Amino acid sequence: MARVVVDVMLKPEILDPQGQAVQRALPRLGFEGIRDVRQGKRFELEVEGPVDDAALARIHEMAETFLANTVIEDFTVHVEDRAAS
Amino acid sequence: MARVVVDVMLKPEILDPQGQAVQRALPRLGFEGIRDVRQGKRFELEVEGPVDDAALARIHEMAETFLANTVIEDFTVHVEDRAAS
Repeated sequence: MARVVVDVMLKPEILDPQGQAVQRALPRLGFEGIRDVRQGKRFELEVEGPVDDAALARIHEMAETFLANTVIEDFTVHVEDRAAS
Repeated sequence: MARVVVDVMLKPEILDPQGQAVQRALPRLGFEGIRDVRQGKRFELEVEGPVDDAALARIHEMAETFLANTVIEDFTVHVEDRAAS
């Protein structure tokens, strides 16, 4: 079984109040030097069977139609290297 | 300016109702073959100056104390390769 990760982030031109709240809180908590923070979502999908091009195309379609709102969000799909995590 | 990504996911032993809701909705929407879904958060930090070991240690501490609730969540910190994104 393979793990496929879909990262969903607000588009750069869309205001991100969650990220801004984090960014503004950091100096108060003693963390300087962070210019900007964006907060998004990470979906980890455990896929049955091989993750071939067809499976990735299906997951791409799923992300586009269901996991992300492509009017305001961008997403990336990648297969996670288990050894690296 | 470098981008550092902090991924925060619920620990495997913690129930993830958001992920379960997504996983259960997928077959109804025509997407089969997804065994499990976990949903977490992704923070993209734009860091001023070089991202050396000291900066990464600071971001690790920030993630541990502020971005993640380490009682129920695991997190990973990695520098994003701009060329790959």
